[in-house]
Amino acid sequence: MSSTPSTPEVHSHGAGVNAHAKALIDHGSAPDNTRSEAPVGVTVPKGFRVASTRAGIKPSGNPDMALLVNDGPDFHAAAMFTRNKVTASPVRYTQKHNDGQFKAVIVNAGNANACNGAQGDSDAAQMATETAEALDVEPENIAVCSTGLIGDLLPMAKVSKGITDLVGNLSAEVAAGQGAAEAIMTTDLVTKQSVYHGDGWSIGAMGKGVGMMAPSLATMLVFLTTDAKLSSATIAQQALGGATATTFDCIDVDGSTSTNDTVILMANGASGVTPDEEEFIAAIHQVCLDIAMQLQADAEGVTKRVTITVTGAASDAEAKEAARVVGRDNLFKCAMFGSDPNWGRVLAAVGMAPVDMDPGAITVSFNGQPVCVNSTGAPGAREVDLSGADIAVQIDLGIGEGTATVWTTDLSHSYVEINSAYSS
Amino acid sequence: MSSTPSTPEVHSHGAGVNAHAKALIDHGSAPDNTRSEAPVGVTVPKGFRVASTRAGIKPSGNPDMALLVNDGPDFHAAAMFTRNKVTASPVRYTQKHNDGQFKAVIVNAGNANACNGAQGDSDAAQMATETAEALDVEPENIAVCSTGLIGDLLPMAKVSKGITDLVGNLSAEVAAGQGAAEAIMTTDLVTKQSVYHGDGWSIGAMGKGVGMMAPSLATMLVFLTTDAKLSSATIAQQALGGATATTFDCIDVDGSTSTNDTVILMANGASGVTPDEEEFIAAIHQVCLDIAMQLQADAEGVTKRVTITVTGAASDAEAKEAARVVGRDNLFKCAMFGSDPNWGRVLAAVGMAPVDMDPGAITVSFNGQPVCVNSTGAPGAREVDLSGADIAVQIDLGIGEGTATVWTTDLSHSYVEINSAYSS
Repeated sequence: MSSTPSTPEVHSHGAGVNAHAKALIDHGSAPDNTRSEAPVGVTVPKGFRVASTRAGIKPSGNPDMALLVNDGPDFHAAAMFTRNKVTASPVRYTQKHNDGQFKAVIVNAGNANACNGAQGDSDAAQMATETAEALDVEPENIAVCSTGLIGDLLPMAKVSKGITDLVGNLSAEVAAGQGAAEAIMTTDLVTKQSVYHGDGWSIGAMGKGVGMMAPSLATMLVFLTTDAKLSSATIAQQALGGATATTFDCIDVDGSTSTNDTVILMANGASGVTPDEEEFIAAIHQVCLDIAMQLQADAEGVTKRVTITVTGAASDAEAKEAARVVGRDNLFKCAMFGSDPNWGRVLAAVGMAPVDMDPGAITVSFNGQPVCVNSTGAPGAREVDLSGADIAVQIDLGIGEGTATVWTTDLSHSYVEINSAYSS
Repeated sequence: MSSTPSTPEVHSHGAGVNAHAKALIDHGSAPDNTRSEAPVGVTVPKGFRVASTRAGIKPSGNPDMALLVNDGPDFHAAAMFTRNKVTASPVRYTQKHNDGQFKAVIVNAGNANACNGAQGDSDAAQMATETAEALDVEPENIAVCSTGLIGDLLPMAKVSKGITDLVGNLSAEVAAGQGAAEAIMTTDLVTKQSVYHGDGWSIGAMGKGVGMMAPSLATMLVFLTTDAKLSSATIAQQALGGATATTFDCIDVDGSTSTNDTVILMANGASGVTPDEEEFIAAIHQVCLDIAMQLQADAEGVTKRVTITVTGAASDAEAKEAARVVGRDNLFKCAMFGSDPNWGRVLAAVGMAPVDMDPGAITVSFNGQPVCVNSTGAPGAREVDLSGADIAVQIDLGIGEGTATVWTTDLSHSYVEINSAYSS
């Protein structure tokens, strides 16, 4: 099998997604704004405008606020949120008003507005109110997202000034989408955008996220736009829910789940085209997978992209659980960093998964080469070459038909450096 | 509160345990054989002999086999094993014969004899048989333990030669116990031993373990001896089971659980003294805690000892689960390495624990100083000094009376180095 995370099959009349993020990000490089020559991002679909600004929230002075506006005619929206019990104020605000319709999303980076008590809730509501007033819509029509450090109050004077700037600079240009994708970054090294071209309609997307990344139903911040004509928000929610379950929910970089994870899809019908429902669902999945792979590639400190596929489980759910346990195991992740085909750590890790397995009939392969058959080492197992940037791990639990894939990364010195050197 | 993991209160007629391991181990130093001036280890109780040898299993040529013999008159024994579904051959052998009586334990380090299929099972049985024949007892009286790399067959010629050496060199001297404690080490930097002096009776112990350390009911290898006169093995099992649940089972260095974890207690009644049952149980707990703290202090790559205490949970079990989730969170562990009082990561981590909590009423303190009250940052929270080697984290979930403590470590560059640079 290929060692590269593969793009699933989709309907042939889909034009396909943007290429996966380039092989591993050059850490320390400037944001890569030239990843693709074809237009990508949230402004590719008709009827969406976006803006970004430097509000002064990030100490670096980099762009740190973005506004994404749906100009209609429809305002269908779907959203998925973190499963963390501790949620940020903007998550609670947006959840409260998540009734299938949003007209705009206001976003800031550099401050998560999480664990800020009643003042945090009030600040999130004020972000919505000020944005709504400037756009002449209702506050309930605004989704609010924040990302960054937990536990500091938002500098609301800067935020208010930022909102005024944003509303005055909305644009449907691709460059504006690129600017917004950059403004929502925290420790991301590159922007993450995607696009899907249907027949007369399209989907655009941007996302951010590099750490605290073991999403539950959603990851970090991801925004999708489409000008497809949907009969209702229900289809949007159905497509988004199904897609996140097998894309964002299957990334597990560090087992940590953010307080701020949010994915929002807005559909305005501006193309006048109603796509085949099956194609629409597959397209949303494809765009989510593309953003998910970009998130994995830019994960904090990553030097290896590790794809863990579990087969032979009692169910798909148990396969996912087993793959996740291996993907979170630090000893396994360190071995991957060291290109060490230490399959014993895979066995030790998967043996702790709370799922059914035949402990004597587990098979493991690295990059397609069997290293452990029936829970016993295979000839040549210690010589498998794992020096490349992509490592495929296959684990068969030997009892059923359940299967799942989880994408993780290695555990490197850079991960420790990034996450110990400063608060983030 | 003190920032040092505290020794629990025990009956005042107990003479107390050996001091905790010295503040952090000097990595790269030679094994510290001078940790305590008072006699410690498995030969302190009457009627136990021990030997160690260089069988040539470890590539380093260091001592790698040990034999611990109970000379009676009683042969009561209790044992706890890993909860990993993937178990090593010696674990399966010892579990099979765990009927409340062992006369000796044969141990090798440098090779885990795990995931070696039928040959591994046969090799473990052969270790028992050869040891039994040399000691003139039955193979069922022998416990077998191995620790080291998973997936390589044992070099049985070397092992057989080692057993012959061991049987010929058994000694009740303290130095022999020290030699055995050294022989069972893998990447341990120091030996781990303990002692408890009752009135006319005593407990001795040795242990090893530095990584793959999130024990479930047991940790790595730990051997306890006592010359206390017990009425039955039931009391030994009860004392050991209770002690491991709140000591070894509460260490969580890296969330990884070994295939080989084993704790064995042997009681021979050689002192002729039957201790008060409550004192005996407390003493076993105290010795287990002492060894557990030594394991934590020598954990791979550790630069900080982190004690996580959860209070206000619905039950003690839920408190332990919540503490464990925080103790396994890599972002939290990296912040501890960086002496960064980033309490937001504690909130984000604990919010994913599958236990009841009041997300708006969580309180966190570092080294006794509140940093988060009612899930909101406290004044001065970012200035708390975490530069010392011991960090105490207290988390109140705000709903009940359940409480538990878990001991973990930081996540350092050394951890990554140790676990990526070579197979172990």
